[in-house]
Amino acid sequence: MPLAPVLDRLDADLDAALDRLMDLLRSQSISTDPAYAGACDSAADWLVKDLASIGFSAAKRPTPGHPMVVAHGGSGAPHLLFYGHYDVQPVDPLDLWDAPPFEPAIEETPEGKVIRGRGTSDDKGQLMTFVEAMRAWVAEHGALPCKITIFLEGEEESGSPSLVPFMQENAAELKADIAMICDTTLFDGKVPAITTQLRGLLAEEVIITAANRDLHSGMYGGLATNPIHLLTRALADLHDENGEITLPGFYDGVPELPDEIRAQWQALAFDHGRFLGDVGLSEPFGAPDRTPLEKLWARPTAEVNGIWGGYTGEGFKTVLPSQASAKVSFRLVGTQDPEKIHAAFVEHVQSYLPADVSAAFPNGHGAQASRMPTDDPAFETARKALSDEWGMEAAFIGSGGSIPIAGHFQEVLGMPSMLIGFGRDNDQIHSPNEKYDLNSFHRGMRSWARILAALSA
Amino acid sequence: MPLAPVLDRLDADLDAALDRLMDLLRSQSISTDPAYAGACDSAADWLVKDLASIGFSAAKRPTPGHPMVVAHGGSGAPHLLFYGHYDVQPVDPLDLWDAPPFEPAIEETPEGKVIRGRGTSDDKGQLMTFVEAMRAWVAEHGALPCKITIFLEGEEESGSPSLVPFMQENAAELKADIAMICDTTLFDGKVPAITTQLRGLLAEEVIITAANRDLHSGMYGGLATNPIHLLTRALADLHDENGEITLPGFYDGVPELPDEIRAQWQALAFDHGRFLGDVGLSEPFGAPDRTPLEKLWARPTAEVNGIWGGYTGEGFKTVLPSQASAKVSFRLVGTQDPEKIHAAFVEHVQSYLPADVSAAFPNGHGAQASRMPTDDPAFETARKALSDEWGMEAAFIGSGGSIPIAGHFQEVLGMPSMLIGFGRDNDQIHSPNEKYDLNSFHRGMRSWARILAALSA
Repeated sequence: MPLAPVLDRLDADLDAALDRLMDLLRSQSISTDPAYAGACDSAADWLVKDLASIGFSAAKRPTPGHPMVVAHGGSGAPHLLFYGHYDVQPVDPLDLWDAPPFEPAIEETPEGKVIRGRGTSDDKGQLMTFVEAMRAWVAEHGALPCKITIFLEGEEESGSPSLVPFMQENAAELKADIAMICDTTLFDGKVPAITTQLRGLLAEEVIITAANRDLHSGMYGGLATNPIHLLTRALADLHDENGEITLPGFYDGVPELPDEIRAQWQALAFDHGRFLGDVGLSEPFGAPDRTPLEKLWARPTAEVNGIWGGYTGEGFKTVLPSQASAKVSFRLVGTQDPEKIHAAFVEHVQSYLPADVSAAFPNGHGAQASRMPTDDPAFETARKALSDEWGMEAAFIGSGGSIPIAGHFQEVLGMPSMLIGFGRDNDQIHSPNEKYDLNSFHRGMRSWARILAALSA
Repeated sequence: MPLAPVLDRLDADLDAALDRLMDLLRSQSISTDPAYAGACDSAADWLVKDLASIGFSAAKRPTPGHPMVVAHGGSGAPHLLFYGHYDVQPVDPLDLWDAPPFEPAIEETPEGKVIRGRGTSDDKGQLMTFVEAMRAWVAEHGALPCKITIFLEGEEESGSPSLVPFMQENAAELKADIAMICDTTLFDGKVPAITTQLRGLLAEEVIITAANRDLHSGMYGGLATNPIHLLTRALADLHDENGEITLPGFYDGVPELPDEIRAQWQALAFDHGRFLGDVGLSEPFGAPDRTPLEKLWARPTAEVNGIWGGYTGEGFKTVLPSQASAKVSFRLVGTQDPEKIHAAFVEHVQSYLPADVSAAFPNGHGAQASRMPTDDPAFETARKALSDEWGMEAAFIGSGGSIPIAGHFQEVLGMPSMLIGFGRDNDQIHSPNEKYDLNSFHRGMRSWARILAALSA
């Protein structure tokens, strides 16, 4: 089945594809906040309906959390599974958005047209690139080029609590030859790329409780323990002066970069000055003997993602608070073990607490880092198809982000993953004013049409 | 003019006095939050009206912030100025209140009846003790026993920005022989006390800004600086391992306790185990060679009163935040200089910042510690009157809290202060479920009637 008319159709139907995407973007499917559960559910309904309209056998599948969307279509080899997620990050601080986050719009920028709104790049805009490629394929040829399963999640931004149980319960149905995951970026905003190594993530929440109520800092200060002191001390001591992480055993399983990969990354000529300059920074954090790309893709981190305690409103309140809390996450590489690091973190925090102070560690969850089997010929086939679409050599790269799904596909279903996405570092995902380049959306669809053709040939 | 009928009248009119207090307590006069400016204004109106009804020449006096209430009455020596504040602390966390904070009510407790609600103890319930004593005096004898000025502030809980300028502009009108300040506690919940030394306060807010927007901790983590790391480090390092404060020059002007005062305080037999046990703690913070009362009344502190940054909502958001902030306060003693300590704090924080990170220090304000002239015979006269009312020897004590007004009366008006109050350590001022013992309110009024009689004799 020829590729050219599919590409032509994607070009001709771009406005209709944008209308569909806008529709999906209007759904306030923030998975981490229970107040938006209804929006998550109706985003899933929207996707089921859309996939059914292309000819998929699609269904909303319940979980203890937000539903999955699973759809089957096509026949013949290979059997490809496409993964994306329809949930989005919270939108606060809302006052930093230039337009309402759930009223998406096309904007002109000095770098070209962008689609602005929460979820445009992470991940609704991305998942619609493969849906649109399949729609065009079916419209042109009456059928998909191979057997395809679509698997869309609604809890990616909140730790995917239902994902592994769902995969285990539906293993036979979900197992395919390879998973295509569309949730990553171009390299340096322009080079098409297949992400072949991902950092893992261990997320921790810690709540330190001292007195049984907030105290007056004048009446009690100097004699009663302040839990914010203990928390700041425990968190400050997570790093040494070089930015290395101090938890005992933390670096167990952290590999040095193979020379071959170091050479490939060197060739990418990453401009870390521009990368940091784009966000108003200039000084690289951490050990001076590591290259910037190594720090971002191949070294572990410990970050405080949120901290709170005491009075944080306007003016002053001289309170000596009862509690202090933080959300901390560790990016993991190699074979670092989330469970061991969780235990080390708990022990670290507890070592700062006097006998009358306690700490709780609710809601922790983790996933190991993953590395893809790039010796599978499908990787080279897809790389060529991407190079053809973008008119430049596509690259195998690393990513600092954590997409635990790739590890789960391997561990639960014994299936490798190929991570191809069209986001850019400046898409402001997880931040106000998230956007997705119109070029990414358009070439993204065309890329998938080419990859479908190449892998089905 | 005899005292006995005044005391009898206070006993007989207790219910009416409570009704008046309840009325004042219903006003949501939270001074630190601009949303409640109207409530502050009408609390001042209520007080003007009430004082006028006793025969005072009373007026609401504008300031750039919340108004003052100034009232004049009586004649003859001495000239006493009575100070209190009608503003209250914020009420959050609201969900920890057992009843709405501005719907005051009398409650039965195992320790007797209490008046529950925001401002009951700090300071509306206290200021009404002297107002009721004066009301009874006028009702019984047709006039006040001496010349009295009442001076009520509406910004005590928000750093008193208008206080000194107002005192300077109205110095001739406000100057009296001695200021009676009713904003302190009984010792150990039962011993009547005149507070003769107070810690000062330096309040600081710090905002550290790194990147110009929130970043994704996967995409940037390991290379971009996290301002929460810097903040936790700077705050953790404010104390050494013994709880001593590390700012250079911080202890300049901190006196050792005179043997005589040390002996007096030893005699009070303070039970720090019970004091800490009441709030769920058992381990005294700080240097082991200092006594608990010394730590609370005569040693300086550094406390983080609030901290915030990054994502603090439900679930996880792997953000690398742009900003991290804290509110920090220092309790000061002796002749510690707030301005020098402010400069040392700024320098301390800035020493942690790389070149591309900045810190702002808005809203700081400070006041030195103060010590009263207990050799003035009025102190002994008042102490005797208090001992008579409470049936036990009244004490000269210290306080860990900061009542900068006493220092201002000395510096601006050259007038000593006598701090007499009837609060208890378990009143939960600045916390949810604030209360004031009915016994404190009742005996407080009677105490003032006795002190007025004794000082006017």
